[in-house]
Amino acid sequence: MEHRRENIAVLGSTGSIGRSTLEVAARLKERFRVVGLVAGANVALLLEQAAAFRPEIVSLGTERAAAEFRRRFGRKKVRVVFGPEGAAEVAGRPGNDIVVSAITGIDGLGPTLAAVRAGTRVALANKESLVVAGAFLRKEARRSGARILPVDSEHSGVFQCLAREKRRFVSRIILTASGGPFFRTPASEIANKTPEEALRHPRWKMGRKVTVDSATLMNKGLELIEARWLFDIEPARLDVLIHPQSIVHALVEFRDGSVLAQLSRTDMKVPIQYALTWPDREVCQLAPLDLGRADALEFHHVEPAKFPLFALARTVLEEGESLPAALNAANEVAVSAFLAGRIRFGRIAGVVERSLEIHVKRPVRGLAEVYAIDRETRERTREILKKGT
Amino acid sequence: MEHRRENIAVLGSTGSIGRSTLEVAARLKERFRVVGLVAGANVALLLEQAAAFRPEIVSLGTERAAAEFRRRFGRKKVRVVFGPEGAAEVAGRPGNDIVVSAITGIDGLGPTLAAVRAGTRVALANKESLVVAGAFLRKEARRSGARILPVDSEHSGVFQCLAREKRRFVSRIILTASGGPFFRTPASEIANKTPEEALRHPRWKMGRKVTVDSATLMNKGLELIEARWLFDIEPARLDVLIHPQSIVHALVEFRDGSVLAQLSRTDMKVPIQYALTWPDREVCQLAPLDLGRADALEFHHVEPAKFPLFALARTVLEEGESLPAALNAANEVAVSAFLAGRIRFGRIAGVVERSLEIHVKRPVRGLAEVYAIDRETRERTREILKKGT
Repeated sequence: MEHRRENIAVLGSTGSIGRSTLEVAARLKERFRVVGLVAGANVALLLEQAAAFRPEIVSLGTERAAAEFRRRFGRKKVRVVFGPEGAAEVAGRPGNDIVVSAITGIDGLGPTLAAVRAGTRVALANKESLVVAGAFLRKEARRSGARILPVDSEHSGVFQCLAREKRRFVSRIILTASGGPFFRTPASEIANKTPEEALRHPRWKMGRKVTVDSATLMNKGLELIEARWLFDIEPARLDVLIHPQSIVHALVEFRDGSVLAQLSRTDMKVPIQYALTWPDREVCQLAPLDLGRADALEFHHVEPAKFPLFALARTVLEEGESLPAALNAANEVAVSAFLAGRIRFGRIAGVVERSLEIHVKRPVRGLAEVYAIDRETRERTREILKKGT
Repeated sequence: MEHRRENIAVLGSTGSIGRSTLEVAARLKERFRVVGLVAGANVALLLEQAAAFRPEIVSLGTERAAAEFRRRFGRKKVRVVFGPEGAAEVAGRPGNDIVVSAITGIDGLGPTLAAVRAGTRVALANKESLVVAGAFLRKEARRSGARILPVDSEHSGVFQCLAREKRRFVSRIILTASGGPFFRTPASEIANKTPEEALRHPRWKMGRKVTVDSATLMNKGLELIEARWLFDIEPARLDVLIHPQSIVHALVEFRDGSVLAQLSRTDMKVPIQYALTWPDREVCQLAPLDLGRADALEFHHVEPAKFPLFALARTVLEEGESLPAALNAANEVAVSAFLAGRIRFGRIAGVVERSLEIHVKRPVRGLAEVYAIDRETRERTREILKKGT
């Protein structure tokens, strides 16, 4: 059976997920054609990617970066755009079959929305989109017929376990967390951990901010909020188990007592490829998972006292409305301050909590409100950091 | 949504699986009606079951048992039959929606075939049917349109993981084995184990014969042969992992490196209920599986030297034809001799191996051949036991 090649646009192509996506696309080139690339400031890598994949359009972060790209790429035929509008143009093109949304942070929201509104299949790695504007994006996806597929390993696991099971048979969705570098550290010793210690993640190689979020378990809190919208499931049915081996990524418990789990090696190419090939599965280059030689699989409940940010995220998940957007913004500012050596690890939670105490919850009806909440929360959190309370 | 109640016939209703099936049917009585029961010699329990469920027909092992049942059941309206023909009559009635095939051993084959030929959905607990006559039963099921659903916990797990995934995406099906009571015993100490020691199964409560098979891992060998026909998968893609916690029942590995696993508490009512309600899932009475409080999940490869019967079963699986029927018969005779104290645990494998060495492999085209292979192998194995070589 021959497929027509599917057109892929990769938003955030020079980042970690973007690069892995292009590796998968290159390996499955009989099946996929890369038609659009969006990067920020990494002109050198985007030039390489554009030369290799011959997209029809690329977008860069700034006009200046776009000009540099144009100059260095020479006469070859490619449309070069830039900025948020450029990214949205690449994401929203009617010729796209799949848009991989892998820009980090709230900057990913605009282009993700453009892809959703175009009714395209969106392979979503940018979790902030669903965290800050989940209800809104779901509504838009329902309207356009866009299908949002997860790229996160945990959500891909859930998606595979759910398969075509009816949602009313699901009693619980459980995401696993590695527990980060401090899972076995006594609570009393965590408060003074340095950025270097927090960045020593035992299982996954990720960016600095996500690695700190993994140490505070905020990452898992944000993923719960993401799961709430991806799978349209009530917060009370969402749960987390700490699983230090990071082999089981997610579990789905059904009302008949049966549980399905998804396992794989810790390589992001597995969920990325699945989001691209779904509902098919293509051969992958990884050695098979050999459980007979792996460590025993442990699962632990989260101790909320040890991970106060996770407990906060659960509350935010239940309260909803503007709170997730505020949580995300406050956390980003506090984590930056920690990485810059301005606050201790133990202070991150306090700063975020204080910022959310001041936040006045309100409904989120569109992007303008999301951006406003984001901006005001960042300012407020910076104030808190400055004043030290 | 209201279902028409589905008609269930339970073959082997007084055995362990049969009793659990009736518990499930009683709990889901809005959905299921028990219309037929087949038992052997346990007239007292069948009387209770018939009084509770009011089936239209019951069958007993012998004419004498049937007469006793008739006398004690009084004037109430029920057809009473007996023997292999009686069991086949209950199994093959056109009014059945689901036939639960839970008679132990080769006696289950005839009634299972009757249900398959009637095109009914068969919830199969009698693994011998597929072991001794798998290719034949599959052909008959294809012809009649009967669907065979697994009741064994491992095969139910596989069935749930496969869901509607395309078979060509599956790279491996893995059944788990508890490892039985001797998994942690050094190979040198196993040979002299007594029936009492072999019957101390760590996880599942089962009959004596199955428990010994679980200690030799023959049980898992037979299950691989069963899986080969249930899921129409080549022997080379079938595997076993020892998993002493018996929480994960099966795993399915896909060609993209992803693995799905099915987990549940060790209660046969979970797979029994799923075979009845599939593709739906009904609420079950069990407390949810709490992995956060369970032991860590270990997986080990099987050491063939420690489990020679398992190694033999793998060879038989690959060779096929009449060998599985011979293996099953030889094993039953050898296990009986062990349970009767006539041979040591360490001799079971030797006796079965010797019996299969003498067996001349041939194709299996129908039941008559299966019964002939079964009979001749039993005789030959008894000879081997008598002569002591």
